[in-house]
Amino acid sequence: MSDELRSLLWTGSCLSVLDQLKLPFELDWIQCTSYCQVYSVIKNMNIRGAPAIGVAAAYGMALAAREAISMPDPEQFVRAAADYLKSARPTAINLAWAVDRCLAEGAPSLGTDAVATADELTAFADQLARDDEERNLALSKYGADLFDDGDTILTICNTGALATYRYGTAFGAINEAFKQGKNIQVIALETRPYLQGARLTALELVTAGIPFHLITDGMAGFTMSHGMATKVIVGADRIAANGDFANKIGTYQLAVLARYHGLPFYTAAPMSSFDFTIASGAEIPIEQRDEDEVLTFAGQRVAANGSHAYNPSFDVTPNELLTGIVTDRGVFRPPFGKWEQP
Amino acid sequence: MSDELRSLLWTGSCLSVLDQLKLPFELDWIQCTSYCQVYSVIKNMNIRGAPAIGVAAAYGMALAAREAISMPDPEQFVRAAADYLKSARPTAINLAWAVDRCLAEGAPSLGTDAVATADELTAFADQLARDDEERNLALSKYGADLFDDGDTILTICNTGALATYRYGTAFGAINEAFKQGKNIQVIALETRPYLQGARLTALELVTAGIPFHLITDGMAGFTMSHGMATKVIVGADRIAANGDFANKIGTYQLAVLARYHGLPFYTAAPMSSFDFTIASGAEIPIEQRDEDEVLTFAGQRVAANGSHAYNPSFDVTPNELLTGIVTDRGVFRPPFGKWEQP
Repeated sequence: MSDELRSLLWTGSCLSVLDQLKLPFELDWIQCTSYCQVYSVIKNMNIRGAPAIGVAAAYGMALAAREAISMPDPEQFVRAAADYLKSARPTAINLAWAVDRCLAEGAPSLGTDAVATADELTAFADQLARDDEERNLALSKYGADLFDDGDTILTICNTGALATYRYGTAFGAINEAFKQGKNIQVIALETRPYLQGARLTALELVTAGIPFHLITDGMAGFTMSHGMATKVIVGADRIAANGDFANKIGTYQLAVLARYHGLPFYTAAPMSSFDFTIASGAEIPIEQRDEDEVLTFAGQRVAANGSHAYNPSFDVTPNELLTGIVTDRGVFRPPFGKWEQP
Repeated sequence: MSDELRSLLWTGSCLSVLDQLKLPFELDWIQCTSYCQVYSVIKNMNIRGAPAIGVAAAYGMALAAREAISMPDPEQFVRAAADYLKSARPTAINLAWAVDRCLAEGAPSLGTDAVATADELTAFADQLARDDEERNLALSKYGADLFDDGDTILTICNTGALATYRYGTAFGAINEAFKQGKNIQVIALETRPYLQGARLTALELVTAGIPFHLITDGMAGFTMSHGMATKVIVGADRIAANGDFANKIGTYQLAVLARYHGLPFYTAAPMSSFDFTIASGAEIPIEQRDEDEVLTFAGQRVAANGSHAYNPSFDVTPNELLTGIVTDRGVFRPPFGKWEQP
């Protein structure tokens, strides 16, 4: 496991976050000793990926509880920290899910014993991290069964160890199939504007030794119509009760293209990415990020002066375009709506 | 016309080519005084756009004919130059079309009088340039009729003055509609890997004063499903006898997405972009460019070390996805196949 990439490490009093903005060429760790620092690394996308953000936020709550001990009203401090952390990014459910669980289940001493609350939240964050690891391992094994010798699997953004506490989701399934000895290849979309595909997924593919090619986001249809891609699997930032799901911008059009070309199209996410409080994807808030991310490329301005840009960070794929949803409970298939057992 | 962008200027003995690799931030002209220099600026994409390449190649032939005067076998020199120029880029038909017309019609003295040949080819290149200008103006007027108040027109790559001798094709139609006072907007795909949309089309849109937003190539489906884009128009590098056409990579998936969302999808090109010698798009050679264009940006490596990439520069859109083909003869509509009069 010496070459395993890790998105974050908890060292007992500090959350070390691998700065993904500097990948793939620099391995630089950011040390977070306050919940405000955790907010910043999530907001600025030093760490990203719905499950990784969830675990980071849980450790952010643990740090907040420690800071709260010396505050006049520790409970109010922790609750304010929770609201602040949840506001860092709106689309992925894992962030709000993890923070809410910290308050609801992880801190029985909240409001009565600030020192005990800090210990409870630290232990609960550890538990959420292990939970993410176990869920991802389980879903990776279910997902691996979807791939056969000769498959070339197209994917977008980054859904590997860097996007989670460990193993990854969609990438975890690909990696598990490869480790099982299946003869598979990958086509990775570079995923503008942040280039998570070119920078992060490519790094994970190289590290894992899986054969792959990068493409620009406009080449996906070409690879499908030429028989170069045989299956598609992507991650999910939030899955609604009807199976609609939000994921990185560009996912929706991949689903349309897969349908047009008759290719299976899967999403993979732990059950913690489901939001059963919303009936459909129409209720998922879509984060709009700064236009500068589109107008620049790798920190360098590329667009003509005077240009403006749209920059929705996610899109919603309707359930009718999905072949299946890979989870730690197994692979759900249409019609979607019953989520206890596939 | 003081702020009109021009792709090239012939100064009587030298072809000045605007270096589009340095746009939008530097206006740098490359002076070509030999046909080999013209080959290089086409090959390296200092000049691009099918019609612009055709005109540049014609002036390349004029330069070759001048160089030929002092050669032992002028005719052989000119014919070798023609083959060399045609080999610069394989997909766009305009390059081969212009060079072949130079030999067939533009140089009656070829093989008998080298000095006369040089004059004839210079005059013929001028004629092809004027011809491109007139065709583009005509097709722009036909294309403008397709747009109505309230339309937001999605387009890819660059098809404006920079891609032609003057006026542009798909962009020419948009610009003409805007000049007619129609209340239209544009959504421009940035168009990786060369970012012709962000660098060149955005520059032309700013220059023309047309309201627009840039998007990454992965956002096209989002803008269609959200009603933000109402029509699509793109250029063409070669149109087969059945209406299939090659254009910048990413065009094909736009056509699929437009069909899925019920949006009109047009291509616009002068009749000189038709290749009636091929029955369908399957016969169009697709240029594969160096993978470094995908793995790097502006000389800066972005993909993880060890990555490889596909880099098809064009794709082919089948005629059944086309609402219409805008030409200098008018707008052809399905069923395609008769090209005398729409």
